[in-house]
Amino acid sequence: MYIRCMIPVVLLGGGNLAFHLAQTFAESEEIDLLQVYNRTLANIEEFEKFAPTTDDPEKLVPAAVYIIATSDKAIAELSAKLNDVSGLVVHTSGAMEINILSPKRKGVLYPLQSFTKDKNVNFESIPLCIETEETQDYVLLEKLAKTISTKVYPMTSAQRKKLHIAAVFVNNFVNYMYGMGEQICQDHGIPFEVLLPLIKETAQKMETLTPSQAQTGPASRKDKKTIALHKQELTKEQLTIYNLLSEAILKKNNDGNKL
Amino acid sequence: MYIRCMIPVVLLGGGNLAFHLAQTFAESEEIDLLQVYNRTLANIEEFEKFAPTTDDPEKLVPAAVYIIATSDKAIAELSAKLNDVSGLVVHTSGAMEINILSPKRKGVLYPLQSFTKDKNVNFESIPLCIETEETQDYVLLEKLAKTISTKVYPMTSAQRKKLHIAAVFVNNFVNYMYGMGEQICQDHGIPFEVLLPLIKETAQKMETLTPSQAQTGPASRKDKKTIALHKQELTKEQLTIYNLLSEAILKKNNDGNKL
Repeated sequence: MYIRCMIPVVLLGGGNLAFHLAQTFAESEEIDLLQVYNRTLANIEEFEKFAPTTDDPEKLVPAAVYIIATSDKAIAELSAKLNDVSGLVVHTSGAMEINILSPKRKGVLYPLQSFTKDKNVNFESIPLCIETEETQDYVLLEKLAKTISTKVYPMTSAQRKKLHIAAVFVNNFVNYMYGMGEQICQDHGIPFEVLLPLIKETAQKMETLTPSQAQTGPASRKDKKTIALHKQELTKEQLTIYNLLSEAILKKNNDGNKL
Repeated sequence: MYIRCMIPVVLLGGGNLAFHLAQTFAESEEIDLLQVYNRTLANIEEFEKFAPTTDDPEKLVPAAVYIIATSDKAIAELSAKLNDVSGLVVHTSGAMEINILSPKRKGVLYPLQSFTKDKNVNFESIPLCIETEETQDYVLLEKLAKTISTKVYPMTSAQRKKLHIAAVFVNNFVNYMYGMGEQICQDHGIPFEVLLPLIKETAQKMETLTPSQAQTGPASRKDKKTIALHKQELTKEQLTIYNLLSEAILKKNNDGNKL
């Protein structure tokens, strides 16, 4: 007789990440999603198809792992309600230290991706950064993480904090650059779609080149004539960002020559 | 009997773009690449497999279209050598106006992509921005452009100049952001590959969302606590860029509240 060993999990939270985790766990043959908790039951009605729901911390069932997938500011208070559980309690935040958790057995399961509500998520290629205090707990959390993703990385709280900042640069700030490109297009009757292949190619290059190898453009080739021409075309706001980043690239590539 | 009408083309230049164009034209059944010109013959030895080569402007053969695919600063001088040809003379620069060309029939064929020497290029999905002075020439250039790409856009010199600047934001500056993310990872023993799925996802979102819709992160949600935490972790150089971009996002999303 073959006995399948599923990891019993309780999920806490009602946001995008909690929803995508619940969906993934419900479909997994290696995770047994026992329960979903949220302070406001009405907000997790959609979760009922995945597991029984509750808004009463007293009614949490025993599980091997409790996953807190809430906003950063709710983590500490919620984890205090789990002080008496014997399972491993993990949060899912990139910015919060492991020690914000109060239960004895603590850990972090941080998926490095931005989650949009209406978009289906395949965790398989999403990096999961995990941390625990005890080796035994690490083995358990790694096992759980590997059931949903092929990319599992050990990461300390200090490293995760840095990674979270790096993500601001490659995600939030990059997206802002896309917005600046879009604005320039809109202002001059150019369809933004013209830029899409370049956006895609720029991202794809990171699979084979380092950012230094891939750097092109007027600043990287010290083309001050083109830079001067560009400057004449920009609004004051665009100019501030154009100047700062051009000087930074010039400095990096050419030992600090000023524009 | 079926008569195939190929467009006779002469290509001028010996760089990456010229090479990829020569390769593409040589494989095309609709373009007849008659000749490749370069000032230094030794630099286009690799081109000999595509077409006869020459370094003598006096020996240029008659063609329907002459394509100048050189660096920006070589265009004017080279085009002056084509003053007597009866064909259409086009340059391939994003930054240069159509009028930098001196021949009577002039145009621009600007492929919006960054070309790396050793990487094969499929022009099919690369946007080609085209411009001519005469409608008749436009029809010819559009026909030529459509033989190699499915994305052909009419674009004036003024628009192309703006597009070129927009490309600096979504390509050069974005790549610099990747570099900043990489630096933070390297400094703290985190593999850069952890960021790759996020980089890919951020770019892919542009296919379905506008940059404004896709904007996430501490600045866009007015999360001043996280921003303050991040600031403590950054080097002076990183901080300057972090501050400027966070304030710009905050301003855009929240009507100008300062950090």
